[in-house]
Amino acid sequence: MGSLMAKHLLDKGHSVTVYDLNKSAVNELVKQGAKNASHVSELGEKCKRVFTMLPTPEIVTQTYTGPDGLLSKATPATVLIDSSTIDPGTAQAVHRAAAEKNVKFFDAPVAGAVPAARAGTLVFMVGGDKKDIEELLEPYLLCMGTSVYACGPIGSGCVAKLCNNMMLGISMLGLSEALLLGKNFGLDPKMVSAIINKGSGRCWSSEIYNPEPGIVPTAPSTNGYQGGFKTNLLYKDLGLAAKVAREVCSPTPLGALTHEVYRLLMQSDGFQEKDFSVIYKFLSKKV
Amino acid sequence: MGSLMAKHLLDKGHSVTVYDLNKSAVNELVKQGAKNASHVSELGEKCKRVFTMLPTPEIVTQTYTGPDGLLSKATPATVLIDSSTIDPGTAQAVHRAAAEKNVKFFDAPVAGAVPAARAGTLVFMVGGDKKDIEELLEPYLLCMGTSVYACGPIGSGCVAKLCNNMMLGISMLGLSEALLLGKNFGLDPKMVSAIINKGSGRCWSSEIYNPEPGIVPTAPSTNGYQGGFKTNLLYKDLGLAAKVAREVCSPTPLGALTHEVYRLLMQSDGFQEKDFSVIYKFLSKKV
Amino acid sequence: MGSLMAKHLLDKGHSVTVYDLNKSAVNELVKQGAKNASHVSELGEKCKRVFTMLPTPEIVTQTYTGPDGLLSKATPATVLIDSSTIDPGTAQAVHRAAAEKNVKFFDAPVAGAVPAARAGTLVFMVGGDKKDIEELLEPYLLCMGTSVYACGPIGSGCVAKLCNNMMLGISMLGLSEALLLGKNFGLDPKMVSAIINKGSGRCWSSEIYNPEPGIVPTAPSTNGYQGGFKTNLLYKDLGLAAKVAREVCSPTPLGALTHEVYRLLMQSDGFQEKDFSVIYKFLSKKV
Amino acid sequence: MGSLMAKHLLDKGHSVTVYDLNKSAVNELVKQGAKNASHVSELGEKCKRVFTMLPTPEIVTQTYTGPDGLLSKATPATVLIDSSTIDPGTAQAVHRAAAEKNVKFFDAPVAGAVPAARAGTLVFMVGGDKKDIEELLEPYLLCMGTSVYACGPIGSGCVAKLCNNMMLGISMLGLSEALLLGKNFGLDPKMVSAIINKGSGRCWSSEIYNPEPGIVPTAPSTNGYQGGFKTNLLYKDLGLAAKVAREVCSPTPLGALTHEVYRLLMQSDGFQEKDFSVIYKFLSKKV
Repeated sequence: MGSLMAKHLLDKGHSVTVYDLNKSAVNELVKQGAKNASHVSELGEKCKRVFTMLPTPEIVTQTYTGPDGLLSKATPATVLIDSSTIDPGTAQAVHRAAAEKNVKFFDAPVAGAVPAARAGTLVFMVGGDKKDIEELLEPYLLCMGTSVYACGPIGSGCVAKLCNNMMLGISMLGLSEALLLGKNFGLDPKMVSAIINKGSGRCWSSEIYNPEPGIVPTAPSTNGYQGGFKTNLLYKDLGLAAKVAREVCSPTPLGALTHEVYRLLMQSDGFQEKDFSVIYKFLSKKV
Repeated sequence: MGSLMAKHLLDKGHSVTVYDLNKSAVNELVKQGAKNASHVSELGEKCKRVFTMLPTPEIVTQTYTGPDGLLSKATPATVLIDSSTIDPGTAQAVHRAAAEKNVKFFDAPVAGAVPAARAGTLVFMVGGDKKDIEELLEPYLLCMGTSVYACGPIGSGCVAKLCNNMMLGISMLGLSEALLLGKNFGLDPKMVSAIINKGSGRCWSSEIYNPEPGIVPTAPSTNGYQGGFKTNLLYKDLGLAAKVAREVCSPTPLGALTHEVYRLLMQSDGFQEKDFSVIYKFLSKKV
Repeated sequence: MGSLMAKHLLDKGHSVTVYDLNKSAVNELVKQGAKNASHVSELGEKCKRVFTMLPTPEIVTQTYTGPDGLLSKATPATVLIDSSTIDPGTAQAVHRAAAEKNVKFFDAPVAGAVPAARAGTLVFMVGGDKKDIEELLEPYLLCMGTSVYACGPIGSGCVAKLCNNMMLGISMLGLSEALLLGKNFGLDPKMVSAIINKGSGRCWSSEIYNPEPGIVPTAPSTNGYQGGFKTNLLYKDLGLAAKVAREVCSPTPLGALTHEVYRLLMQSDGFQEKDFSVIYKFLSKKV
Repeated sequence: MGSLMAKHLLDKGHSVTVYDLNKSAVNELVKQGAKNASHVSELGEKCKRVFTMLPTPEIVTQTYTGPDGLLSKATPATVLIDSSTIDPGTAQAVHRAAAEKNVKFFDAPVAGAVPAARAGTLVFMVGGDKKDIEELLEPYLLCMGTSVYACGPIGSGCVAKLCNNMMLGISMLGLSEALLLGKNFGLDPKMVSAIINKGSGRCWSSEIYNPEPGIVPTAPSTNGYQGGFKTNLLYKDLGLAAKVAREVCSPTPLGALTHEVYRLLMQSDGFQEKDFSVIYKFLSKKV
């Protein structure tokens, strides 16, 4: 994700410095004109805007507030923007640590995943002061995406993202149940999908990301559930949504149960690294 | 529904005879040129095609196989088509009773609800012999709708419809959870809906039928959850889907839980007759 | 079950005639003094009291009301008592069919399973007229059990049994979750079971039928989940409880979810014929 | 709880110093011979053993590690024992903070609730070194209880307690569903409870703490669901169990759903402060 996003900033003429543990991703961008930071803290020291895209809340905390982290050398001249999918509590904690150094920090997760990152059509959901978002972030974010939502105070971007991803998990599991109900009765999942897509059960999962192989040529299911959005990442997001739900006492019966069904999947060999639509295969009859 | 469908047959020049317990619906069609049957069995006796649209499996059974029912006077010259949302077992039983009299019967539920019935853009899901469906039914069905799916043997149309409606219930409940998760954290449901509609959580319920009042002007939520698709009808459909799931041993964790949450709604005063999107209000904080 | 129950009637000096598709069970009882009916309808013709113990509602319906069934030759001199675990609707239908012939029929499921059948300590839950139950049934039922509950009108015995069995399924699944939560953290399930048995989580499943092998020597888990109460029978009962819940609109969120988790188990090879406590093994980590 | 436990230490001849925000609880113990600490940190400074019983993990953290907390003046001569029901992560964090000062800390939640605290028959589940537990804690714990389980490393006592309480919540909700299933069909809950208590659905909730008023005279349900174990405390425990389940990736479908149903209860006016068996009333028909 990160390298696809950086590419757009380069294309728009910005000077870009990059850092990643994955050296081949870094080298690719360097070939295209980016500079290579020797350490992540160098970004905080030298760049006007720092964008991060990291896999878990724990890694975000460490990258920002750990010894030699981004905040160790950041100054008020730097604006920090994290696009990871994390819980709002972590974003708030990093924000507080940044504020102590007079450094501005925003949570800015994205919708649209890899295809939108590649096309430069990401949707940004941003937590923080609305005027700051418009003035300090938008000029850069709109290089990489098409929409920027100022969602509310720090952490609000994270919550908006978790709302979407919880809905995504529920849709995919629900659709899998619906297609299998038909299939186990004898109906063709392709036909049932076509009907659902003309009906009130229509959703992104049925149209774009159908879990029955062969219906949508570009869907991971058609490619052996390879690539796409990994099961362990959706599972993590469902856990973060559950955490927020507990904190604000919001009812999420289907969200909680989807989390549990994905946990059963996580326990089974070979599923964690597959695209999350593999839940369809997990529910299919084994006998 | 029935009168909206009959209107299209009249408009296309067909001779139409109608029967309904609701006399004002009958009178309206008579004004437009329909004939009025004195008893439902008269339809079976005199019409080449009989279309029924009834609220429950029990009423379908009674209307077809009861004393003085449609089958009591039906002859092989008549083709019977039921567009009710019922379980496949009931459709199969009516089919067997019809077959004993050499009368053809098809299950042909519709997608699109009242707006599509009015516009003549219904989608028909039909169970029965594919050649019969094409030759005997399509010329009539395409007067009222735009697509006809031959789903498989008798009962298959019912199952396709239940797949869609189970998914509909899951989507609406899941979306309600997602919007409330954001709202209880402090996010504007209108903004979260806009984000979801640009993201992977997008669904018919978020785009067309949003349960937060005021987002979609034509959605029942905006009109006090009046009209639309009543809670007790969706609850019935979730129960029929559960019945099929048990019969074919198909896993439906979210479908079953959605059924249970709607059952809690059914127990609460004043909700049964509201549009099913009122589940959103049921889950909203009362304190 | 049936032969264990018949044995007690023989022991108390009653003349007993038996019928079963399993010839070795019949022969065993004949050795002990029972007579062998040539056909099930002979029981209805010749016996004052007929007791049946059958696996499913469909088989009960067929055995009583099928051609050559129990009712085909039954007279008002016979009293029919069914101890199968079935839904109340089936019991009511058989009762109506019997009443048309002036034959008395009662639903009388049992609690206590095989050990209580062997020991003669069954608990009978009976639906039907209270005075009839006391006068016509008790003298016989108390040969085989220790308690007789007159539960209410026909079908009430079935419902009481389904209440218990739904609770049984919930307890076993809940206990499995609790023991595995501890185990996955590193706690010894034997120790956690001991604590639960001294605490407020105590239940029949934790004390008598613990799903962790080796804690209760006589529990099926200790014997490779062999014998006991088969998964497919509990699954059937959970489905019958769900049917009653739908009919009386009673909320059963945990009951419905337990049904779904057992359905996943039913789909997996080799689990259906194991004792239902094998759900513990199904939920255990595979990786 | 705390004052009931302190009373037993006094009765056994120990010198006891107490601290509580509730002054009347303190005064009562002072009358019985206890000394009154002027601040909670005084306990850490002066007592050989300090026992704490607090409502939430946040309060435990603050009481131990906050400025002027127990650890601020504690020395290696003090042993700290926390009997609150908290998550193991909090216990581990307090343990680390204590270890930095060479102070021993143990998590030691209790089973048995108020009646066992009063009778001195508590069951202690303790996390920490087994030899330390036996030598340093048992002589004191056995003044207040009858059993001490050394559950494993720090945090293990918390997990054992959460296993029991998750099971408790599941049992109570499952039993409520079972009794209401019968009641909505027309069966007497008292009779169904009696049958369950003789059957395999038997549990602590059905025998000791029945949620239908009037069956168990001492159960909170019989006293208007007053007193007992408050809904908001069980809800908190279900959330802590969910947290552990996520951390160790252990499947808890019924635990998660019970948490959600209690969350609906938490949203409804007037239920949070009632005994947790009030879930029965929440599920009862309102129409």
